[in-house]
Amino acid sequence: MVQRVAVIGAGISGLTSIKSCLDEGLEPTCFESSHDIGGLWRFKEEPEPGRANIYFSVILNSSKERMAFSDFPPPAELPNNMHHSEVLQYLRLYAQAFNLLQHIYFQTTVTAVSKGPDPAVEGQWVVETEGRDGQRQTHVFDAVMVCTGHFTKPHLPLQDFPGIETFEGRYFHTWEYCNAEGLQRKRVVVIGVGGSGGDIAVDISRVAEKVYLSSRSGAWVVSRVGQGGIPVDMLGNSRMDMMLQKFFPSWSVRTAEKKLNDVFDHRLYGLKPDHSIFAQNAVVSDELPGRIISGRVQVKPNVKEICGSSVIFVDGSIIDKVDVVVFATGYNYSFPFLPPALQSKSGYRLRLYKHVFPPGLTRPTLAVVGFVHGLGSLTPLAEMQARWATRVFKGLTSLPSEKNMMEEIEKDTELMHQRFVLSERNPIQVDYIPYLDSLADLVGVRPNLPWLFLKDPRLALQVFMGPCTAYQYRLTGPGQWAGARQAILTQWERVLQPFRTRVIPEPENRLTSKLRIMLVFSDLVGFLIP
Amino acid sequence: MVQRVAVIGAGISGLTSIKSCLDEGLEPTCFESSHDIGGLWRFKEEPEPGRANIYFSVILNSSKERMAFSDFPPPAELPNNMHHSEVLQYLRLYAQAFNLLQHIYFQTTVTAVSKGPDPAVEGQWVVETEGRDGQRQTHVFDAVMVCTGHFTKPHLPLQDFPGIETFEGRYFHTWEYCNAEGLQRKRVVVIGVGGSGGDIAVDISRVAEKVYLSSRSGAWVVSRVGQGGIPVDMLGNSRMDMMLQKFFPSWSVRTAEKKLNDVFDHRLYGLKPDHSIFAQNAVVSDELPGRIISGRVQVKPNVKEICGSSVIFVDGSIIDKVDVVVFATGYNYSFPFLPPALQSKSGYRLRLYKHVFPPGLTRPTLAVVGFVHGLGSLTPLAEMQARWATRVFKGLTSLPSEKNMMEEIEKDTELMHQRFVLSERNPIQVDYIPYLDSLADLVGVRPNLPWLFLKDPRLALQVFMGPCTAYQYRLTGPGQWAGARQAILTQWERVLQPFRTRVIPEPENRLTSKLRIMLVFSDLVGFLIP
Repeated sequence: MVQRVAVIGAGISGLTSIKSCLDEGLEPTCFESSHDIGGLWRFKEEPEPGRANIYFSVILNSSKERMAFSDFPPPAELPNNMHHSEVLQYLRLYAQAFNLLQHIYFQTTVTAVSKGPDPAVEGQWVVETEGRDGQRQTHVFDAVMVCTGHFTKPHLPLQDFPGIETFEGRYFHTWEYCNAEGLQRKRVVVIGVGGSGGDIAVDISRVAEKVYLSSRSGAWVVSRVGQGGIPVDMLGNSRMDMMLQKFFPSWSVRTAEKKLNDVFDHRLYGLKPDHSIFAQNAVVSDELPGRIISGRVQVKPNVKEICGSSVIFVDGSIIDKVDVVVFATGYNYSFPFLPPALQSKSGYRLRLYKHVFPPGLTRPTLAVVGFVHGLGSLTPLAEMQARWATRVFKGLTSLPSEKNMMEEIEKDTELMHQRFVLSERNPIQVDYIPYLDSLADLVGVRPNLPWLFLKDPRLALQVFMGPCTAYQYRLTGPGQWAGARQAILTQWERVLQPFRTRVIPEPENRLTSKLRIMLVFSDLVGFLIP
Repeated sequence: MVQRVAVIGAGISGLTSIKSCLDEGLEPTCFESSHDIGGLWRFKEEPEPGRANIYFSVILNSSKERMAFSDFPPPAELPNNMHHSEVLQYLRLYAQAFNLLQHIYFQTTVTAVSKGPDPAVEGQWVVETEGRDGQRQTHVFDAVMVCTGHFTKPHLPLQDFPGIETFEGRYFHTWEYCNAEGLQRKRVVVIGVGGSGGDIAVDISRVAEKVYLSSRSGAWVVSRVGQGGIPVDMLGNSRMDMMLQKFFPSWSVRTAEKKLNDVFDHRLYGLKPDHSIFAQNAVVSDELPGRIISGRVQVKPNVKEICGSSVIFVDGSIIDKVDVVVFATGYNYSFPFLPPALQSKSGYRLRLYKHVFPPGLTRPTLAVVGFVHGLGSLTPLAEMQARWATRVFKGLTSLPSEKNMMEEIEKDTELMHQRFVLSERNPIQVDYIPYLDSLADLVGVRPNLPWLFLKDPRLALQVFMGPCTAYQYRLTGPGQWAGARQAILTQWERVLQPFRTRVIPEPENRLTSKLRIMLVFSDLVGFLIP
């Protein structure tokens, strides 16, 4: 019987894992190597080796309602796309509301996880830790949740850049980047547009003499500011939209790509990738187009070689007098504390059933949480994984046989490779809502839409046509939350609230048509069938 | 007979005035108080009293083809929206190409301009200068062109901010702003959104803890990046568009405002002004919406008072712990060297016939060049004024009687006040193409469209449906330039060229519909009627 659970890491995934344990009556003990919660989202003045690092100007790609925990709507006043300091603030409120802090040992690094000491008790784990003072300890747990994330080990492929050893300037990985200090009036080459490359190029371009943004494969670029100024991920991300995408896949791709090309022609701007819009996470940037049209950021192809202070690109063009090269070349995942047997691979990914459970265990008592990517915020994904994992720990939900899991993993990997552009650095991509729903099915919390349309049509309309926010998974079943309905019905209100800092004294009658229709529909149905 | 002309200032207006003098066989002598050309566009590490100042991140609002001199297309490689350093580079090329530098006395400040010494020679002027070493000189000229611009005297209305004397932080006018250095992690209130306020708020927001952008009247915000990524001022600014605006004024306003509200609802974002889109220059910003949605810049209403480190707004809201207040409160115009008689006013503006000639002179030998605002770049306006003024100096074009000029000025002022939102700080607004055309008529260089459609339909189509670039005023008449036709037919090519830094090896078949139609039409007509 699982009772004591070790949670490794106190970032978003760790915090929601602690909470899931508590919800299921388990006893979580969280080990966090730093002195504070937040993981990636805790800004560090200096990058700390072995930990994720962000730069000062980082803004969350997802809007607050899409990144929210399912039973903890963010304060209405918080901006829609939060600064990292506000994300941390939200996480603090979450930890406080559910009394999570008391379960966390700070400045305690997990150095090893190995199978339990007593063969009679199957599924137990020995967790070795090292405290701030170097003090080593050994603990026995019934289960382990690994919540250490993707972004700890920078990938710096110097061997792919012949001549880098002759480079006369300074170079560094984006992991080291905090702000543009020291880059004033410099000539900077940023290698890699995905993830943080585009963002950092923009950041540097405000003070640099010139920034060259080198991209091998291009990228789709999407602004956080959607039509009419509504957060872009609150539009076009409903269950209805997913249905349209499923039944009219090429139309959906064309429509989505046309929208992005209407903002700026990706071919004209030298960014059009070979892959379709849904095959990889788009680069989220509000500012890149403006930096390109003004030449502050110049898009360049892949780097061929480096020679002294010159960077030579594959099209033969040369940029001289380069002061700084920034490698935005991504991260390798790394779980140094896990036994190698648990780190076997399927394609580029770890061999994990539904990206959570290693299939070869005699008892399913080790889960990886938050090690997944989808076209949307990590929070709901990690939370749903944690909810599922804790129920599996407790035996309330069972896993298929090892053979069946292995088969499904292989099938899943193949499908993923067909649909998405994957790589060592980008090993996993899930279909956002379908993946959430598949876990929700296992937990027993997937919303039953036909039933909901009969019972509560106003709510059903929001669940079907509104953005798929995580509150939907608290309407029913285990972990049901009484506030979920209200959280869904008031989500647009929380989107509008942060804008009300200079109120124009007229009715808000020009909200984007989509939002207006959403609100009208839901009010109308609520009026007709109260 | 006018021969020797004094040109005061070597910015854009001064340079084109020197060139116009040379084109008309006059002898220009330019006095420039600093050590270099460029005026506003010469970036200064420290603001220099009495001179315009820009901040390091400044990007030109107009695109290069719209800001170009009529007989000097910018190099194709330059970006569409130039950084100030590139504007200066373009001005240097212009000065070099037409040998303008030899006519400029640097570090020579004009301290006074007064009526000529010899009553027998009407229209002459005595120009007093002071050199770097304090050496004073007196010169006699047949004519004077005043090219000192708008932005030399910052307007700092402290009296409108009760309690400012109690403010515990630092405050300064945007004139003093060079970059965000020293504002890291500060809480900053920027007062005024127009002109540079929005831009500087964005700049600071990348490093500040929070920026509050206080606006009395709101503003329309437009991005440099137009549909499909084409420079926004290359679209919707043709003679055809002007015709549509003239015949369907309310439809035009509605359409233009709808476009801007599609990007972000100006009411939702707290920026919707009372005036219509064409009543005042819009705020040009590619980044403000993204900064607002992320809460990095928070829009606030007008400031009511300041108390210690708190700023109190008219809606009663209070921001505490404010470290810095930036006054983006504009500039007052100032011509300290001109006799007061020449500085009488009509409304907020100077009483100048067509914004160039004081009407009370016995002979029209003093012209103000570049002291005008329109919904477009200053360069073509200043250039056309200079071309007209030099021809008036030479007697090739005459002015109406003083009485008629006075009447027309009053009529014009009244019209301006009806159509535009004007103020002490924004005294002039002209209808861009109609104003250019009215001067072009006087110079004799206005394109004759019906005739052009018969003679050269391919060109005519570009002149009518393409962006109204200044090359149109070199097709015919005095100052005709043989390269003008080619400059017009290749203007789109120069727009596309700077984007070709990472060429996607496929046909450019997805350019925005408008551009594609333009190119197809013009090629088609050129093909049918070669």
